Amino acid sequence: MTEYKAQTTDMLFAMNDVLDYAEHYASLPSGADATPDIVHAVLNEYAKLCENVIVPINRHGDEEGCTWQEGQVKTPTGYKEAYEQYREGGWPSLSSSIEVGGQGLPASLSKIVCEMLVSASPGFALYTAGQSGAIETIAEYGSEQQRALYETKLVSGEWNATMCLTEPHCGTDLGLMKTKAEPQVGGTYKVTGTKIFITGGEHDLTDNIVHIVLARLPDAPQGTKGISLFIVPKFLSDDDGNLGQRNSVHCGSIEKKMGVKASATCVMNFDGATGFLLGTENEGLKAMFTFMNAARIATATQGVSHAEFGYQKSLNYAKERLQMRALSGVKNPSGPADPIIVHPDVRRMLLTQKAFAEGNRLLNYYLAKQLDIALESKSEIERLAAKTRLDLLTPIAKAFSTETGYESANFAMQCFGGHGYIREWGVEQNVRDARIAMLYEGTTGIQALDLLGRKVLANNAHSLIAYTNELRAYWSSVDLPESLQPQLNKLLNYIDTWLGATHNIGERAKQNMEEVGAASVSYLMLSGHILLAHFWLQSAFVAINKQKENIEKKDFYLAKVETARFYFDHLLPRCEGYLASIHAGADSMMSITEAQLAAW
Amino acid sequence: MTEYKAQTTDMLFAMNDVLDYAEHYASLPSGADATPDIVHAVLNEYAKLCENVIVPINRHGDEEGCTWQEGQVKTPTGYKEAYEQYREGGWPSLSSSIEVGGQGLPASLSKIVCEMLVSASPGFALYTAGQSGAIETIAEYGSEQQRALYETKLVSGEWNATMCLTEPHCGTDLGLMKTKAEPQVGGTYKVTGTKIFITGGEHDLTDNIVHIVLARLPDAPQGTKGISLFIVPKFLSDDDGNLGQRNSVHCGSIEKKMGVKASATCVMNFDGATGFLLGTENEGLKAMFTFMNAARIATATQGVSHAEFGYQKSLNYAKERLQMRALSGVKNPSGPADPIIVHPDVRRMLLTQKAFAEGNRLLNYYLAKQLDIALESKSEIERLAAKTRLDLLTPIAKAFSTETGYESANFAMQCFGGHGYIREWGVEQNVRDARIAMLYEGTTGIQALDLLGRKVLANNAHSLIAYTNELRAYWSSVDLPESLQPQLNKLLNYIDTWLGATHNIGERAKQNMEEVGAASVSYLMLSGHILLAHFWLQSAFVAINKQKENIEKKDFYLAKVETARFYFDHLLPRCEGYLASIHAGADSMMSITEAQLAAW
Repeated sequence: MTEYKAQTTDMLFAMNDVLDYAEHYASLPSGADATPDIVHAVLNEYAKLCENVIVPINRHGDEEGCTWQEGQVKTPTGYKEAYEQYREGGWPSLSSSIEVGGQGLPASLSKIVCEMLVSASPGFALYTAGQSGAIETIAEYGSEQQRALYETKLVSGEWNATMCLTEPHCGTDLGLMKTKAEPQVGGTYKVTGTKIFITGGEHDLTDNIVHIVLARLPDAPQGTKGISLFIVPKFLSDDDGNLGQRNSVHCGSIEKKMGVKASATCVMNFDGATGFLLGTENEGLKAMFTFMNAARIATATQGVSHAEFGYQKSLNYAKERLQMRALSGVKNPSGPADPIIVHPDVRRMLLTQKAFAEGNRLLNYYLAKQLDIALESKSEIERLAAKTRLDLLTPIAKAFSTETGYESANFAMQCFGGHGYIREWGVEQNVRDARIAMLYEGTTGIQALDLLGRKVLANNAHSLIAYTNELRAYWSSVDLPESLQPQLNKLLNYIDTWLGATHNIGERAKQNMEEVGAASVSYLMLSGHILLAHFWLQSAFVAINKQKENIEKKDFYLAKVETARFYFDHLLPRCEGYLASIHAGADSMMSITEAQLAAW
Repeated sequence: MTEYKAQTTDMLFAMNDVLDYAEHYASLPSGADATPDIVHAVLNEYAKLCENVIVPINRHGDEEGCTWQEGQVKTPTGYKEAYEQYREGGWPSLSSSIEVGGQGLPASLSKIVCEMLVSASPGFALYTAGQSGAIETIAEYGSEQQRALYETKLVSGEWNATMCLTEPHCGTDLGLMKTKAEPQVGGTYKVTGTKIFITGGEHDLTDNIVHIVLARLPDAPQGTKGISLFIVPKFLSDDDGNLGQRNSVHCGSIEKKMGVKASATCVMNFDGATGFLLGTENEGLKAMFTFMNAARIATATQGVSHAEFGYQKSLNYAKERLQMRALSGVKNPSGPADPIIVHPDVRRMLLTQKAFAEGNRLLNYYLAKQLDIALESKSEIERLAAKTRLDLLTPIAKAFSTETGYESANFAMQCFGGHGYIREWGVEQNVRDARIAMLYEGTTGIQALDLLGRKVLANNAHSLIAYTNELRAYWSSVDLPESLQPQLNKLLNYIDTWLGATHNIGERAKQNMEEVGAASVSYLMLSGHILLAHFWLQSAFVAINKQKENIEKKDFYLAKVETARFYFDHLLPRCEGYLASIHAGADSMMSITEAQLAAW
């Protein structure tokens, strides 16, 4: 049984057939080299790396985990060699500027290929996540000298990097941050404090690790407006990157976690470590927000990775595992029982995974396209529109893709019956690894508040209305086959319902702000289901046309039409539950007292 | 922070105030000694054991796990001592016959107290599960001699036991079973075959382990009608239980699992092991079915245990963790932020856990009461009615309690944010431990098929109609306060909808049997949500009256009323999604081909 097959066919379908990436890339400064042929080749090369080099280290990475001894972290056997191959393939540099040694391809392409790396090994993939964040941050805010030194070393993959935000008492609420940075003679800073949950804070994959640290200057305003960014490398270096003195930042311990065990999650102690200001004083959090959309799209993509991995494993198993006969009569007369794929409930679990994997893939590619436009378009209006769209949809994608990714991973396990609980099959690891994505980069609850409070109600639903108008205009403009008309009617009805629910919450929030929090997660899940209805209908529509011209891939296209139908029949109706909960409001959440909750 | 507090107050509320257990026990032969005072004392003693002896071994049992060496299994440090205290407390004998050394209390009481043991340590609790199954099986089918030897030793806890059903190629489909039993001169049998997933198949807690093994006689009919039951002890003994020859049954390995790591899950090799026929030849599976209801209620109770454990942990955390300010204004002005319990979405997650823990507790106690009646009532009509009710509701309780128990465990973790993913808090262990309950003793899918196919449609919904008539009659008979009337209307509407959906599926199944499988899980989840609506309304109704007379527990009773309101507002509406999926039918699950599913 193949462990994992990169879904390049579907990735290209999403990019080229549904979302017009060819045209999109042609319009971007960075897209000159990103022709369909090149993109195809990039995906194929990356797929090979993932299937042949990364997949083989995944399972034992989970078993072996990382070890910590006297401040040093050892990654699992084979991880250093795999990282070396990843680096030699030039993958850290895919979307980075040519001037720092990058390949200068569009930002979206990095997000897109990432899916494969996470399916292949979520623990390994996390060593590349801090890397991307740091590269993007230094590229935007670094001085020329900082870019030449740090960005170059990171883009080449010689050095690795982290983002140091969380402290023991502050995760979501960064305003409570205590880590301080004191200015020194000569323009450097002494950074002191403890950061936790630092992914790849210490390891043996690279000679140096560059920490991007959020800290407070002595005279900084209170709360989130007093946070600045600092570069704190593990080893100080000269301008050419020749390593010098060991900096006083050390890994105090690593966490024992539910999953992603191959990734070292570190407590980092900064004891007057030498740091360099990155960007403007007290504008650290603003800088973080710039990159949060990118980081959240990357996390959303992890939801796709887990759904895809589980789907493949459980589909293969369901075709082979013989158990019981179909209720409608024997399907495998020569065997002692039928393969379990004949049973409708097994198909329900498989189709749910497929619907979420492929639906969320499209949603995330749509966002990745907006990310390119926001970064690169020559038109300020286009950049702003893309940014607004990203702001609106990114929290949905992050929370919805990871929630449904986890649900999918659980369905994969369920298809295996009791065998799914045993480690050797790898599907329980997928569940454990998938679980973190609903927590980090802002929990589902935080995404939901961001969506409903900040991105929808705070601007009178302006950007939501703009988006839904665009959806309506799109569906008016296409010549839809009669067979898809009932699905379109459902989608258009739900778009109305979505706007109606928004208005309703907005009105109630005028009386009681807690209505926003009470409705938020149901509202986000409702939004996600409606978005996926749009993307599934679009997939079916495109596929119906494509299957006529491409006989060879007929099954692939027909699967799109069938899965869309399943999605509208069996998953979209969950909206009804979310709507009823939204309309029921905050009262029965808020009226119970703490004493009553704990009355036992 | 307390790790776990046994919920004796709520257990007694469910038993005495809602379900009239006092009257029920008074009517049972075994209930003479089960007065409210004795029951209260039993719960308190069991609670002490769980809180003081079992909780402390839980976390490190997960970390250390079991080890296998040359056929021997070592349980985690402290497990043998804890088992000794469990045994000395007389807990294995609670519901067993006095004639074999038991305490002769009603069967329900064993099921009820079990919840605490599983909350305290799911891994430890599993060593008592095979015990109960074997005791019940031998009590029902054993010869006098077998009962005197094996049941006595098991009831005293000196020996432990397993149930050996599953084989590598057959879990659900026991008709495929291959293990064989060959008759020997002298009336014994040689049992040969491999059994997997044997909970507690080998360990160091007791001197002997008694395996109840399903196997085929040489001339047995094919399929499930050719299965017999055998007693295969690890050590053969004389009639007084003095150990003799080591039997040729050995543990080949133990599984590495996602959770319940303190429990040894064994591959058991029977190499011509000496076995003793238990009950009648070829009627082994029938015997198993007799006890399946009891085993499934026990598993359903595990769902309650996990929801309860997670609820307590996350409630305590939510009261202490300071992060952000309430949207409606500062609630904790003297602190740097408000405790997260002020946020509506955190309350939503807490109330969901509370609603499922306490709602499922009532459902399971209702079933445990039916179990007593089915076992003990002098009236055959009552026994049959209780058996029919059990048959109908047990698959719902098993699947619904464990699915919502897992959901609850995940919500507990979500309340902790990123900290929940770290092992030290124990909430991720709760998620991993809870996951197995949806798989063993029949997966959710199997329970759903059993419910809809066998228990509902096969008898023209006769027993469902009888049950819903009883519910309607109950609600017509009570004098409900005006404030609960809207909830009653919702409940009665959903009862109509439930019957309507049943009829609708039945009609479609006449054309296509796959409609049953396609609707089954949604139907089961719909049924579970409606059952809990009944039990929550009943709780609120009882609590409204009780709070007037019991000022001291006012908060406890008001919490019932508030949680019922939350349940009707925010959880019951999920039914709408299930209903829509049921009505959409099998077509979009079945029409996609295997080739299309794998077209990549």
